[in-house]
Amino acid sequence: MNKALLAAATALALALPLAAQEAPKGYPSPAEIIAAAPKGDWVAIPAEDLLVMTLAPDSEANPRIVVIQLMPAPFSQGWVHNIRLLARSGWYDGISVNRVQDNYVTQWGDPNYDNPEATGEPKPLPQGLKVMGEAEYLASLTLIKGSEETMTSPAGLRASADPYGSSLHALGWQLAGRDMKLWPVHCYGMVGVGRNYSPDTGSGAELYTVIGHAPRQLDRNIALVGRVIEGMEHLSSLPRGKGELGFYAADEADKRTPILSVRVASDLPAPDQPRLEYLSTESQAFETYAEAIANRRDPFFITPAGGADICNIRVPVRRVAD
Amino acid sequence: MNKALLAAATALALALPLAAQEAPKGYPSPAEIIAAAPKGDWVAIPAEDLLVMTLAPDSEANPRIVVIQLMPAPFSQGWVHNIRLLARSGWYDGISVNRVQDNYVTQWGDPNYDNPEATGEPKPLPQGLKVMGEAEYLASLTLIKGSEETMTSPAGLRASADPYGSSLHALGWQLAGRDMKLWPVHCYGMVGVGRNYSPDTGSGAELYTVIGHAPRQLDRNIALVGRVIEGMEHLSSLPRGKGELGFYAADEADKRTPILSVRVASDLPAPDQPRLEYLSTESQAFETYAEAIANRRDPFFITPAGGADICNIRVPVRRVAD
Repeated sequence: MNKALLAAATALALALPLAAQEAPKGYPSPAEIIAAAPKGDWVAIPAEDLLVMTLAPDSEANPRIVVIQLMPAPFSQGWVHNIRLLARSGWYDGISVNRVQDNYVTQWGDPNYDNPEATGEPKPLPQGLKVMGEAEYLASLTLIKGSEETMTSPAGLRASADPYGSSLHALGWQLAGRDMKLWPVHCYGMVGVGRNYSPDTGSGAELYTVIGHAPRQLDRNIALVGRVIEGMEHLSSLPRGKGELGFYAADEADKRTPILSVRVASDLPAPDQPRLEYLSTESQAFETYAEAIANRRDPFFITPAGGADICNIRVPVRRVAD
Repeated sequence: MNKALLAAATALALALPLAAQEAPKGYPSPAEIIAAAPKGDWVAIPAEDLLVMTLAPDSEANPRIVVIQLMPAPFSQGWVHNIRLLARSGWYDGISVNRVQDNYVTQWGDPNYDNPEATGEPKPLPQGLKVMGEAEYLASLTLIKGSEETMTSPAGLRASADPYGSSLHALGWQLAGRDMKLWPVHCYGMVGVGRNYSPDTGSGAELYTVIGHAPRQLDRNIALVGRVIEGMEHLSSLPRGKGELGFYAADEADKRTPILSVRVASDLPAPDQPRLEYLSTESQAFETYAEAIANRRDPFFITPAGGADICNIRVPVRRVAD
């Protein structure tokens, strides 16, 4: 396996041999299928859909940049509107990572907002934030059962048979569906909106990402707004908080990682805008890739699983080649 | 929610509100169900089944202790034999964590064994290690279809309907089954045996734990031998490796975390032996807990999931109260 493929596989966190000896020949791995996908199967991610979050450098002065892809319509638009507004107003600048709960979430926001370890007053929010309803936790899409057309709009929905009754991909996102409804799924690296008890649905000022096994119970109970597509390790490897719910306790407030800035990529000078693309979930290459994950036959594997859950079938994302 | 319950919930990494305001009244949470379980529903874990792994202290001189529960019969016995032998021979003392791949595994062992970044010769293994066959990736248990008795031995198998065709618990472990066979499942925190390409099955000298979403493709392809039940955060929050497969690269060998010692708890002086117990997967309390995870109705939740995957239903483990 060559280094380029290994790097791609590492970035995508696919299954790989647990040691690094030379691989025998065999069926292609998911990473090899991705690498061989035609250029035309990749979809550019608009700079307007990318957030660039700059954390304070680490203890060795290495930069820590996290890139988040915001969901396009028809997913979570009200919250995504709020997040762009919060970013553009500079509200996120100077907040921090306040909570890291193992096998659950890393959460960032105002350290004085609903934090049992707060020491000051919450930061005022900007004007113009939308208040969303709980019905919006579902995508504004409907499955049409028994029809050739699987969604009202837009076309193209990839279904797989394994868990959740049905596991689905469309428009570059991991979805679940039941009773004619679709919703985005809490998988590793997905970004959601912290909220208080119902009927609060959160504004987008408090955000979290999943750092463990998919917490299925949060689906349809909280808004998902995007996913971390670069720099996830800067959020997943932070020290876990010892306070309630994994918040950093009063005596470890120095562990809060400062967030220096959050920018919508389209507001950055062109050379600073990350240029990224995802493998179309409607492409033949994606179909081949998903099938290979469900039934690994590349050299390390001896027994294909015969299925994969929706969170195992991540949507490949990469830098656009120059 | 009181602090004891919060602590229990945090330790178990259950779903919890994303903010810490006072909860309204409602159905009990999984953590509350666990806290209310009768004392008789808890099963003591034998000290012979516990490994105490002491990592070098962290950068602030805090101790880092990881406790691993080894699987009892009928799961993975040959490898577990090897692991006790390796621990008792002192072979593990002085090895290190050499690989941390985001959303996949943290792996420890001899830094010169099958490591693309090796700088020396591998450490010789002790005599007496068993060589296991690939058939042993399956448990030595058989499902008896359509019978009152669900396993040949021992009795007691809790089935849930959701993913994997069937998701199962028995004897305190998370299992999957198909075609009359059972196998343990790669969930977050499970410990497995690194191996090379087939027909190698690994000795137990190289071990890893899952630090992300369940890598289903590894099930039935690699041996599982236990799970981390305390100190998981010391393995999951380590810096990710920049080398191939997440190994620490040659210029970051200083990131390898030294493992000072690994002891079978029964070899420690009695006061130093961790005393732990798990909630019987055959108990009514476990049944209630598992159902509550599949259908959260405690105050934060508005839409019960209607199912849970096997890795969401973790087996509760706690310290024995004095």
